[in-house]
Amino acid sequence: MNEFELINRYFRDERPRAGVALGIGDDAAVLALPAASQLVVSVDTLVAGRHFPENAEPAAIAQRALAVSLSDLAAMGADARWFTLSLTLPEADEPWLEQFSAGLKAAAEAYGCALVGGDTTRGALTIGVQVMGCVPHGQAISRCGAKPGDRIFVTGSLGDGAGALKVLAEEHALDTAERDYLRQRYYQPMARLEDGVKLRGVASAAIDISDGLLADLEHICERSSVGARIEVEKLPVSPALRKLASVKQCFQWALAGGDDYQLCFTVPAACIAALEALRADGLKAEPIGEIRADSGIECWLNGEPFVSESTGYQHFD
Amino acid sequence: MNEFELINRYFRDERPRAGVALGIGDDAAVLALPAASQLVVSVDTLVAGRHFPENAEPAAIAQRALAVSLSDLAAMGADARWFTLSLTLPEADEPWLEQFSAGLKAAAEAYGCALVGGDTTRGALTIGVQVMGCVPHGQAISRCGAKPGDRIFVTGSLGDGAGALKVLAEEHALDTAERDYLRQRYYQPMARLEDGVKLRGVASAAIDISDGLLADLEHICERSSVGARIEVEKLPVSPALRKLASVKQCFQWALAGGDDYQLCFTVPAACIAALEALRADGLKAEPIGEIRADSGIECWLNGEPFVSESTGYQHFD
Repeated sequence: MNEFELINRYFRDERPRAGVALGIGDDAAVLALPAASQLVVSVDTLVAGRHFPENAEPAAIAQRALAVSLSDLAAMGADARWFTLSLTLPEADEPWLEQFSAGLKAAAEAYGCALVGGDTTRGALTIGVQVMGCVPHGQAISRCGAKPGDRIFVTGSLGDGAGALKVLAEEHALDTAERDYLRQRYYQPMARLEDGVKLRGVASAAIDISDGLLADLEHICERSSVGARIEVEKLPVSPALRKLASVKQCFQWALAGGDDYQLCFTVPAACIAALEALRADGLKAEPIGEIRADSGIECWLNGEPFVSESTGYQHFD
Repeated sequence: MNEFELINRYFRDERPRAGVALGIGDDAAVLALPAASQLVVSVDTLVAGRHFPENAEPAAIAQRALAVSLSDLAAMGADARWFTLSLTLPEADEPWLEQFSAGLKAAAEAYGCALVGGDTTRGALTIGVQVMGCVPHGQAISRCGAKPGDRIFVTGSLGDGAGALKVLAEEHALDTAERDYLRQRYYQPMARLEDGVKLRGVASAAIDISDGLLADLEHICERSSVGARIEVEKLPVSPALRKLASVKQCFQWALAGGDDYQLCFTVPAACIAALEALRADGLKAEPIGEIRADSGIECWLNGEPFVSESTGYQHFD
């Protein structure tokens, strides 16, 4: 099987797709954006043994690869439209490809995001996904807009990614239901695209939590030249995580564990009413602290200073 | 040095760039396309030891990676605007990164193409480049439009990529000037972006020659449901290549060698006058054959059938 046969068999999809003038099978894809919109682009590379276990199920790897890339679009308030796939494989393993492409198709379908191109090469298993979406002109949510006094929110439970890694490494015993929940949170994190779209015009800054709440909130603080105070007892923690460890350990994971793919965002006082209306309409968002003028992030647990054991995943350390 | 320091030191560029509302340093880049244009996107992954020698100079690798990706935009008639970089490295080797980023910046500057995002991960040396450009709405040149009777052209000399590999492997002795020419053709192939833009409305189909003329022309033939006849003696061969081997060997490399990154394109009779005007105005384009109704590609050398030894680089064989 050569590269072209591989692409035809596992990745081509001839159905017409919104905005796709020319998809897989030419030198490049040709795409049409909606009027008065801007393009939002992000790329993520997952390396086997580093970003997912070597023996992970191919369908789960595909779903995770797409979700973590789309999570960056969610943090910008963009919708998800198209993606390209760079697949590096040690060999053209047909059962693996069958499952990987089935997982990828299911995830792409769920997100309404069309595969429009890519390439396959031989080498150590590595999955690169570049995602493309759109925002109405000028409405992207950056990391730069947080101001002192803005409230800080997260879209859902934190620490599950770190807990899942313990479960996957079988360091902890858990009932099947909680184990499955945490596995799914790791392999099939949901990119919070709908939440991000709702936050246009409401959030002053946003980021997705991939490296851990403290590390990612620190990016907002740096780019916005502000600091933050976190009320640790307000961090949302799932019931499954609570069964795995003490409440303090859960908070440590919630602060620094990473791999959660919730959104962390800031809301100025003038937009709190709009946010409350969104929450009343079903948006999950929990207040966890406040932006401060002084740099640095302070953590408090029930009025006492709380020290995080780690500040998150550091690439290339 | 962590990932963020690495990106800041080697890849961030704060200068304002056309169409870049938000570049490196946020969750995603935000880009504005010109009015009435479509987005053209392609991605290429280069793996060390497979797509370039392990010991190749970092600046040359960077230049080659960008050029081979941009070559796909050239084949669509698109301009080059932005790109993202996925860099997988065994370690954060500072001298290597210094040279790689210098080579990348020089190439990006030469093509007028801005780096807007990307990621760095640890693993076997692999370079992924996704390029983005634009075409006026509906003017992209696909592989699908070739019709029987269309003339086939190439934009410049063929076989140099294959010859360069022999020189790099030191299988052939050559004078310094020719050696340097071939090395440069391999490491710094020029994406024919200006040629591609000129061919809008003139070429009925186009492709860039990465796998070899026969293999790539076959893609046009398949997608257009046609065949082709090549007059082998018309294939442009460089003086440096002629010094390296017999004329027949040069033609073999020209037909199947790959790594040339010239454009191969087809022109209907109605557009030949427009093409001649472009050639008179400086466009390099040599006629090499004709599209036929019958499938398959025939090669003729001075009126005799000519058999190609190989049909080009087959990925995953």
